[in-house]
Amino acid sequence: MALRFEVGPLTCLVTFTFLVLGRFNRARAAQLTLPHFVSQTPLFMPVGTQGTIKGLTTSQLEEIGAQIILGNTYHLALRPTSELIDELGGLHKFMNWPRAMLTDSGGFQMVSLLHLADITEKGVTFQSPVDGKPMLLTPEESIQIQNRIGADIIMALDDVVKTTITGPRIEEAMYRTLRWIDRCIEAHTRPHEQNLFGIVQGGLDPVLRDICVKGLVDRNLPGYAIGGLAGGEDKDSFWRVVAQCTASLPENKPRYVMGVGYPLDIVVCSSLGADMYDCVYPTRTARFGTALVPEGVLKLKQRAMADDTRPIDPTCACMVCKNYTRAYIHCLVTKDAMGSQLLSYHNLYYMMQLSRNLHSAIVEGRFPDVFDQVNYMYLSNLYALGLGLGVKVFPKGDVPEWVCNAMEVAGIDISSCCAPFPSSKD
Amino acid sequence: MALRFEVGPLTCLVTFTFLVLGRFNRARAAQLTLPHFVSQTPLFMPVGTQGTIKGLTTSQLEEIGAQIILGNTYHLALRPTSELIDELGGLHKFMNWPRAMLTDSGGFQMVSLLHLADITEKGVTFQSPVDGKPMLLTPEESIQIQNRIGADIIMALDDVVKTTITGPRIEEAMYRTLRWIDRCIEAHTRPHEQNLFGIVQGGLDPVLRDICVKGLVDRNLPGYAIGGLAGGEDKDSFWRVVAQCTASLPENKPRYVMGVGYPLDIVVCSSLGADMYDCVYPTRTARFGTALVPEGVLKLKQRAMADDTRPIDPTCACMVCKNYTRAYIHCLVTKDAMGSQLLSYHNLYYMMQLSRNLHSAIVEGRFPDVFDQVNYMYLSNLYALGLGLGVKVFPKGDVPEWVCNAMEVAGIDISSCCAPFPSSKD
Repeated sequence: MALRFEVGPLTCLVTFTFLVLGRFNRARAAQLTLPHFVSQTPLFMPVGTQGTIKGLTTSQLEEIGAQIILGNTYHLALRPTSELIDELGGLHKFMNWPRAMLTDSGGFQMVSLLHLADITEKGVTFQSPVDGKPMLLTPEESIQIQNRIGADIIMALDDVVKTTITGPRIEEAMYRTLRWIDRCIEAHTRPHEQNLFGIVQGGLDPVLRDICVKGLVDRNLPGYAIGGLAGGEDKDSFWRVVAQCTASLPENKPRYVMGVGYPLDIVVCSSLGADMYDCVYPTRTARFGTALVPEGVLKLKQRAMADDTRPIDPTCACMVCKNYTRAYIHCLVTKDAMGSQLLSYHNLYYMMQLSRNLHSAIVEGRFPDVFDQVNYMYLSNLYALGLGLGVKVFPKGDVPEWVCNAMEVAGIDISSCCAPFPSSKD
Repeated sequence: MALRFEVGPLTCLVTFTFLVLGRFNRARAAQLTLPHFVSQTPLFMPVGTQGTIKGLTTSQLEEIGAQIILGNTYHLALRPTSELIDELGGLHKFMNWPRAMLTDSGGFQMVSLLHLADITEKGVTFQSPVDGKPMLLTPEESIQIQNRIGADIIMALDDVVKTTITGPRIEEAMYRTLRWIDRCIEAHTRPHEQNLFGIVQGGLDPVLRDICVKGLVDRNLPGYAIGGLAGGEDKDSFWRVVAQCTASLPENKPRYVMGVGYPLDIVVCSSLGADMYDCVYPTRTARFGTALVPEGVLKLKQRAMADDTRPIDPTCACMVCKNYTRAYIHCLVTKDAMGSQLLSYHNLYYMMQLSRNLHSAIVEGRFPDVFDQVNYMYLSNLYALGLGLGVKVFPKGDVPEWVCNAMEVAGIDISSCCAPFPSSKD
């Protein structure tokens, strides 16, 4: 399926449009039209490792409201192989997903999953997990594989460096990412059906980030990702890189912060003008027995859940909250995969609902209202980091400094939630 | 929910009716009214070990057409415990299953799962899997636990002996089962909401089976199970025990053959006048990557499936066959739990469809027609036993002797499918 619009006597295949529907300061809500679906941003994209979001059918994903899902190129390229997916009519058809899809370049997973990966100017060299022989993934090959898979959005191969590293390697990686984008553009054979996004690198260095943004914007790509974050840097560095990049990326193109997934991070980044996110967090935490709720998280394995007859979240409208109790899910989650399926369903619903809330709050001019929940969001984040357990009411004045700083830059007044502190560094 | 009928000025809670709607010789199709659902027989009941059919939501089970599902008393009693299920409003509410439910006595699983189980006149003594101490499950306790769980049908505690054993132990077990039924009836506190079924024992000995049937029928129970089969006996012994029991059990009560589950066995037993079946086979075989299809089974892990774009069964109308290819499920089943969920969905749909086909064929007077497929059914059975791989067209004349014998007794002419052989022993 591709979206076709009748324009007089012509039928026009719309591959890509990005239409901003509303703004609040730097935040924006938009409609993103892709070959397979018209999505609303801000937007969280669930991650499906091998052509499936673990435990959920594609009809359940539609039910939840997923608009774009991620396929991991690395896993798909290994099995069933991109050639086979191509032969079978592309990944959309293979996994029976009618809506939009994004594939990553494969590079990040090779570097993060494999011990023996090495990056040279040619590409990413790694030891084949199949036969142990050295293999090379070049920018050209990454695009060729993604062209075969056929997602609506494909990602450039970039040179990813940990944000916690310092020194000349950061600069080298940024310039290499810029050199590789031209090889990616050159190799891309389906630009009228698939949208290539460039990825901004440069670590935590504002000068390098700026050079990378300018270099990529010059290439006039359909969209831009902010890469290399969510890799262990402190939160204050994290939001500043996002704020800097969103300020200089074009207004009329989507901005995708890669690997970001805690509810609070999505709220903060959206306030700063980012539009798209992805993370394994909602499904991974589900497999550990944890549910996302407005107050933070709920650990379903706890003994206290065994006779709790309430739904996971009494305010949630999802199938799981409508049908099952905490006691039942506690019983499952301690011994059966079914428990984590139900939690994945709920958690992805939660993320989709968060995206929908952000979108409609911006469009309807009531965006600052969502920050009534910022105290709760902070809790979500703390729990996500495994620092504590549920306290339903969180006293005001404990919102972390980085959130207060970021919100000030975003032009959103949450001072009533922020404890007084000397002054922001900004 | 309970089924209530207006009878003049009275409202009548219908706990149990069994209405035969059609017959073909010994086979019958009936409507079985239980407190939570009106079911159609012949009927296959999926087995849910711990308050869940692995991988499927209760709404998917309704979608498939499941009418009665089984809960394993032993597992539920250990966790979350029957007391807790009772407190939470019963198993129907706990697992959000609106339709009918059956629980077993717990005895069979204690004997089959635990090495140190011992049966005395008092009950089943076993080593607690929690603290290793000896525990005793008596007929009274089994019923008390099942009364707390609240299923529509509950099973008497019986003394189960392997069919492959011979000697006085068979006789002892049969008489003990008869003595225990009185203790079960006596202990049963909810006879107007839950239906207690007795279980016919007696091994492969027709005299003992006959004594047991008569003893149980004298107690005028709502229904009767044929127990102790599907435990390694040869097929000819199996069908003869079923045929004997169904011939002497009352016409107006349901007959449940426990542990039976291969498609061919269900067809043969239904021909002989049995009505209900349960087995883990469709879901267990799904977890091993095997799908039930009219021609037998399909092993989705086989390499040949990797690029097969057909559905599991092109003639099947289930959600999985409508949405996914063999290639996709092959890709999942070799690495992800999602594959077995999709296969479980399909396999249970297959069993439900088989039940529906048997029911309507009997009601509509075209029961012998289903035996056009008997060759295929035989294949299913062979594959189920792991003896071979798919051959689409199976030559006539290879139907096993036991099926031909059973069908002769059932009054169904399948002689065109049967190879000539000396003579049946009957």
